[in-house]
Amino acid sequence: MTKMAIMGYGVVGSGVYDIVTKNADTITKKIGEELKVKYILDIRDFDSHPEKHLFVKDADIIANDSEVTLVAEAMGGATFAYEYTKKMLKAGKSVVTSNKELVSKKGTELFKLAEEMGVSYMFEASVGGGIPIIRPLVNCLAANHVQSIYGIMNGTTNYILTKMFKENQSFEEALSDAQKLGYAEKDPTADVEGFDTMRKISILTALSCNEELDDDKIPHEGITRITAEDVACAESMGASVKLIGYSKIDGKKVSARVCPMIIPNDCPLYSVEDVFNAILVTGDMVGDVMMYGRGAGKDATASAIVGDLMDVVRHKGKFDKNFSWSTAEKTVFFNPSEEENVFFVRCDKTKAEVEALFGTVWFVEGAQCAFVTEKMTEKAFEEKVDSLGGVLSKIRVYK
Amino acid sequence: MTKMAIMGYGVVGSGVYDIVTKNADTITKKIGEELKVKYILDIRDFDSHPEKHLFVKDADIIANDSEVTLVAEAMGGATFAYEYTKKMLKAGKSVVTSNKELVSKKGTELFKLAEEMGVSYMFEASVGGGIPIIRPLVNCLAANHVQSIYGIMNGTTNYILTKMFKENQSFEEALSDAQKLGYAEKDPTADVEGFDTMRKISILTALSCNEELDDDKIPHEGITRITAEDVACAESMGASVKLIGYSKIDGKKVSARVCPMIIPNDCPLYSVEDVFNAILVTGDMVGDVMMYGRGAGKDATASAIVGDLMDVVRHKGKFDKNFSWSTAEKTVFFNPSEEENVFFVRCDKTKAEVEALFGTVWFVEGAQCAFVTEKMTEKAFEEKVDSLGGVLSKIRVYK
Repeated sequence: MTKMAIMGYGVVGSGVYDIVTKNADTITKKIGEELKVKYILDIRDFDSHPEKHLFVKDADIIANDSEVTLVAEAMGGATFAYEYTKKMLKAGKSVVTSNKELVSKKGTELFKLAEEMGVSYMFEASVGGGIPIIRPLVNCLAANHVQSIYGIMNGTTNYILTKMFKENQSFEEALSDAQKLGYAEKDPTADVEGFDTMRKISILTALSCNEELDDDKIPHEGITRITAEDVACAESMGASVKLIGYSKIDGKKVSARVCPMIIPNDCPLYSVEDVFNAILVTGDMVGDVMMYGRGAGKDATASAIVGDLMDVVRHKGKFDKNFSWSTAEKTVFFNPSEEENVFFVRCDKTKAEVEALFGTVWFVEGAQCAFVTEKMTEKAFEEKVDSLGGVLSKIRVYK
Repeated sequence: MTKMAIMGYGVVGSGVYDIVTKNADTITKKIGEELKVKYILDIRDFDSHPEKHLFVKDADIIANDSEVTLVAEAMGGATFAYEYTKKMLKAGKSVVTSNKELVSKKGTELFKLAEEMGVSYMFEASVGGGIPIIRPLVNCLAANHVQSIYGIMNGTTNYILTKMFKENQSFEEALSDAQKLGYAEKDPTADVEGFDTMRKISILTALSCNEELDDDKIPHEGITRITAEDVACAESMGASVKLIGYSKIDGKKVSARVCPMIIPNDCPLYSVEDVFNAILVTGDMVGDVMMYGRGAGKDATASAIVGDLMDVVRHKGKFDKNFSWSTAEKTVFFNPSEEENVFFVRCDKTKAEVEALFGTVWFVEGAQCAFVTEKMTEKAFEEKVDSLGGVLSKIRVYK
């Protein structure tokens, strides 16, 4: 029998408890032993919980109990979760997490600590909720050089953009609907400004190039400036608008970014709607591979955590270097202004004025004046846009 | 250093050799040691190959060389590949394969042998080519009861159906195009009659319910009877037609089938086109998850084999029971005639005649007389169709 603890009994933590309890038979059969929750750490009281005796408020009780070898961290944030995760790893316990902020900010340090202590630190649930992505990337695509990753990794923004696309809602209307349905927080900043997606693309990129990324150096832009007109233009181009976290990896040169993108309908990300997420990975051997599913939610996220817990038990908590990164690779993070992209622009100028500055462009039919540029550097584009003036919106285009 | 052999130097086998050679640096870094091809088994001569000294025609040379601990089998078929796989496992070597026929027909026996010998027998490449599916199913979704699997798992038929859908080609025209492009064999039976898909759904189902499936008991139907009229009807319903291998798992009751299906546009399988494959798995906790990518081809399939080879090296060839099944579970394979489905029918009868027999149905607009039934058993449907007469086509509908 493996005895475990859950840290944080919110949506995800209670989901972990539910699965470990509800699917106990299957779990036992698959890992060859029982997986039993001995403690649940939470500062709140849960006196009406059927197993209220499991709850503790002091992390040391768990850290000092040598019977507990495995901990699921579902607290979120990078303050208490950081302290408690270190405490558990130092106490020789493996930790499994869904905490994207902690993994992206403190992954390097926590992996090193886990390796020193000879335990696991696993994080399948930190990106894409229940969608298998970390393990496919690390194991199934191991023989590949990953060339690019493009992901719709935030359900809230994808729900809003879908509503704008399908029901011609404004951003404000769609956000308000999302809040009513519980898909968006009261303060939606982390989602709509792209911070959440930034953490996730940071994790996937760091794993792919085996090098820590400084999140703060990833340019990021949210969806608050996307208008109904932009969405209508995309539609008339046979495309949709999505909030994308992407990275392009060319040998040791890497660029990463979070921004809204126009996705043409021949890209499999085009039709990913509502709260669904999808991550499109291109490897030099396998070509395009996409993983799709529910990127958030209690059961889906908890499903990924419990999958990791089971894997840790099967591998006796052994540290697996492939599920980590370091600061040793000396990857060059590309100057964002030198990165090349294709751009969509909506403006109040004439076609002649546009062509005088941009040369060959593709005008969007029916729109006042909207066009798609050829591939150019971010810097060159910004200079031309400044000269043009009267720009109503500019959105990168997936190519 | 791990020394390995490749059995079969056709498309996939040569792809394995290429990746192991081309991406050697990455592979060494990830697995912590060199992976070196010592032998290639093939009955043909490869005298102009730069490493022609690697080629052998006698499997015993490999079996008797204790330096070789790992073998990639890319021979295909279930005769020689079966004998040679047994020989290698008995000699204490781990084997990795892309051979869906061998795994689906002889998996139970080969897993048992691998377990007895304390070696691995891995088969990620046997389903969906380079698409991560076996490992996500076994590891990432481990905490779930898998409830259903629906897969587009044959690139040839999907290419043909896409051409029929997008370019209004007939089945014969599209098949002929596919043959010219090398997507279809001269004798396309295994693909178009659904045998290939049958092997693959058999493997995924057996893994999910931990029980051997008798392939011959999986009802299967190909796409040769699909007409341009059927495809047009699907289109006017906002749907596409796909060759699907599916299984529905309800506790110990399992039904599996291969057949063309009408896929509505709110299902993520709808937009999977050309030679791409996708597998949609529903788990009780994670909900719908889909894996998408190239289901065949040299590099994609070899990418999955090399991923498995690397995993075997990392885990020192240890047998992992979760990547296997047995005959011990006593799963009940459902009587196919009792399975419930929704059906599309095209016929030369009147609406009144249809409604008199089927009760409430949904008529397809614009079509002569085409309708979709409510959910009913296969048996009840066949009886009604027989009574109706004049049926031009009948296709199951994804629900």
